[in-house]
Amino acid sequence: MSEKIPYKIYLEEHEMPKQWYNVRADMSKKPAPLLNPATLKPCTAEDLGHVFCDELVKQELNESDRYIDIPEEIQEFYKMYRPSPLVRAYCLEKKLDTPAKIYYKFEGNNTSGSHKLNSAIAQAYYAKQQGLKGVTTETGAGQWGTALSMACSYFDLDCQVYMVKCSYEQKPFRREVMRTYGANVTPSPSDTTEVGRKILAEFPDTNGSLGCAISEAVEKATSQDGYRYVLGSVLSQVLLHQSVIGMESKIAMDKYGITPDIIIGCAGGGSNLGGLISPFMGEKLRGEKDYRFIAVEPASCPSLTRGVYAYDFCDTGKVCPLQKMYTLGSGFMPSANHAGGLRYHGMSAILSELYDQGLMEAVSVEQTAVFEAAQQFARVEGILPAPESSHAIKCAIDEAMKCKETGEEKTILFGLTGTGYFDMYAYGAYNDGRMSDYIPTDEELKKSFDTLPKTD
Amino acid sequence: MSEKIPYKIYLEEHEMPKQWYNVRADMSKKPAPLLNPATLKPCTAEDLGHVFCDELVKQELNESDRYIDIPEEIQEFYKMYRPSPLVRAYCLEKKLDTPAKIYYKFEGNNTSGSHKLNSAIAQAYYAKQQGLKGVTTETGAGQWGTALSMACSYFDLDCQVYMVKCSYEQKPFRREVMRTYGANVTPSPSDTTEVGRKILAEFPDTNGSLGCAISEAVEKATSQDGYRYVLGSVLSQVLLHQSVIGMESKIAMDKYGITPDIIIGCAGGGSNLGGLISPFMGEKLRGEKDYRFIAVEPASCPSLTRGVYAYDFCDTGKVCPLQKMYTLGSGFMPSANHAGGLRYHGMSAILSELYDQGLMEAVSVEQTAVFEAAQQFARVEGILPAPESSHAIKCAIDEAMKCKETGEEKTILFGLTGTGYFDMYAYGAYNDGRMSDYIPTDEELKKSFDTLPKTD
Repeated sequence: MSEKIPYKIYLEEHEMPKQWYNVRADMSKKPAPLLNPATLKPCTAEDLGHVFCDELVKQELNESDRYIDIPEEIQEFYKMYRPSPLVRAYCLEKKLDTPAKIYYKFEGNNTSGSHKLNSAIAQAYYAKQQGLKGVTTETGAGQWGTALSMACSYFDLDCQVYMVKCSYEQKPFRREVMRTYGANVTPSPSDTTEVGRKILAEFPDTNGSLGCAISEAVEKATSQDGYRYVLGSVLSQVLLHQSVIGMESKIAMDKYGITPDIIIGCAGGGSNLGGLISPFMGEKLRGEKDYRFIAVEPASCPSLTRGVYAYDFCDTGKVCPLQKMYTLGSGFMPSANHAGGLRYHGMSAILSELYDQGLMEAVSVEQTAVFEAAQQFARVEGILPAPESSHAIKCAIDEAMKCKETGEEKTILFGLTGTGYFDMYAYGAYNDGRMSDYIPTDEELKKSFDTLPKTD
Repeated sequence: MSEKIPYKIYLEEHEMPKQWYNVRADMSKKPAPLLNPATLKPCTAEDLGHVFCDELVKQELNESDRYIDIPEEIQEFYKMYRPSPLVRAYCLEKKLDTPAKIYYKFEGNNTSGSHKLNSAIAQAYYAKQQGLKGVTTETGAGQWGTALSMACSYFDLDCQVYMVKCSYEQKPFRREVMRTYGANVTPSPSDTTEVGRKILAEFPDTNGSLGCAISEAVEKATSQDGYRYVLGSVLSQVLLHQSVIGMESKIAMDKYGITPDIIIGCAGGGSNLGGLISPFMGEKLRGEKDYRFIAVEPASCPSLTRGVYAYDFCDTGKVCPLQKMYTLGSGFMPSANHAGGLRYHGMSAILSELYDQGLMEAVSVEQTAVFEAAQQFARVEGILPAPESSHAIKCAIDEAMKCKETGEEKTILFGLTGTGYFDMYAYGAYNDGRMSDYIPTDEELKKSFDTLPKTD
């Protein structure tokens, strides 16, 4: 049987999903509502409509529709770079000498280099439908900014990206990709916003932060006619769009009669993990099947494994709605961690609730071990993984090695979210033995928990 | 009919080629033989065996077998990153508003970022079969070096790469990818070889050159037990391995009843172009079908369009066999041209002979126009192309625009050899308007023609 499974399973175009799956519809206990930061009351569509596109607000608040149609135009765009391959990691299995069967869904075969494009194109589409001129956003590691630039270029929308200053300087090539797609990239903090000018006046030498970039992007969106702000993770709408990852995986696996025992994904804000597991989690929630789900986060930014489940600000500037989530506190400053995409202090509300209900596990892994796994994977599977994705690789290898000990032939599926072409500085540090691990102390965490808002 | 053709055609594993196609078997007039640089007599297998692996020497000299079996192990490796997609460029067609149907064979979906891996894995395999310890090579732009590193890592072979010093310094990230795959990367010229030390003594501040790196790699291979030298282009064995590109393209097109009118590829040493066109050229040579073939080269390094057809050295160090080819003279110093992979002074012997027989056309294009085409392509097709590949894009767009004028519904196939993730410095220059064009003067060419050897 397993001999018949090809290295890579590509769906035919007609097999590609035509709807996104909204996992909230199958949750008996829903995620807690977003709160208006001014009133601390649940956000209304009107509250959210000042910041986000109308259709996306509807999706954000929609907890009842199990499936939402993917508009024709987005389906067409998906066909440009999807279906993404579901890969049987034969070479890795052989190298590990494990009885486990390892599969990964590879989202890196597009120029943004990651799964982020799945939601970027949806958000750009709805902005265009609403007749907007453009959108604003922030980017840290740069994958989201790149994806949004590509999406906006396709729909001829203006794209204004606030890029954390240290990334802007350290990752000039990411910046150039965005510029090639016509985006306007500004290092943050900048003098183009009030909040940016204020921060610059106070801290002229700051390298910027994601929180500050979000605040600038939100201000820019709300102060210009015809603009809205878009976000690449954390929000429930993003997990909805990313469900295309899990749906494609499930269709491909069903086609070949494969049932995963364990499903693994890296978790920063939760966009990839949430998208990958959604349809499988739906089956579990409906009592149809059982799976083990494992969220993998960096030991340096352990929101699920060491955070608290509480209402918190989504941004350090405290201008966005409050969300109930596993969080380290919006004041948490992650250490210099090369896995830029996983440095967020909080976690998607959906995933937080599923984790709190015990439907999902979480582990944290250290950076050096992650790069060791990345190198091992690259050498046998021929794909240079992003540091973020490599957290999932590390966990998948660990699970496969457990199977080797026990002799169990488990089927493991993990999400390989992207490629590491723009992370060679980090690979260089690893190659040179200059990479270190960092785990925040209990005291540091306690201090950042003190930044949590009092909501009741 | 055309509505039924998907955006991307992937072959099933069982449809993938099991043999390479050797176009020389169908050429009534064969390419001229390689000459021993010392004796100026045709190279024997023994001559070549000092430098190259035995099986590869056989392939180099094999002009009669039309098909050569792809060893099982190489077929398995191919399945890790192949089949590559044959893409229908619907979005580009729409943007250009052309009646032409445009297809491209995309070879960039692997970590080496280009088609180079197709030959690298074959060469590494035969080296391993011969019981060698390792191989040496040179790399300029870095794609070949990356591909070979990946291939050697897979077969656990030592890989020693001489990287042109200016590339080594300007492209540290390419270097890190090679190191991640375990390769030993040395900036050339270096003090690890006699020829390197000699050059350094004479020109201590030199930035290196491809010719010098080749000489160092050859010296290193021939002075160490258990090593051979491998090369990523120009040689007939490389075109043989790269025929997998054309064969997959042809199988996919035949499956959907598509016949290309024009087949376009960028041409540096000729590895991609030769591989892409081979099976189609075979049909033309056998009188079964007719196609237009177009080689696209940079105006700054125009070996086909402005070179002479003569015996020349393959390297500036003059240690490799002489080859009859279209050449600018081994003393030709191409200007600072960002399309690093197309800076070779000569052209594959097979392609040179086909061009000389009038079976193939050639055009040259200027760099700024190439980047304009690259950006246009990236924005609608979602792939950031390598500068080299973008030469083919430019020509394909030109041909499609001619169709728009005449109303002809021609079918165009071009080779998209790779991605531009490591070429963002060049994209940045283009984005900033800092890019310039350069065309060598007749006088400069005349001077470099003077470096041609006297062979009779």
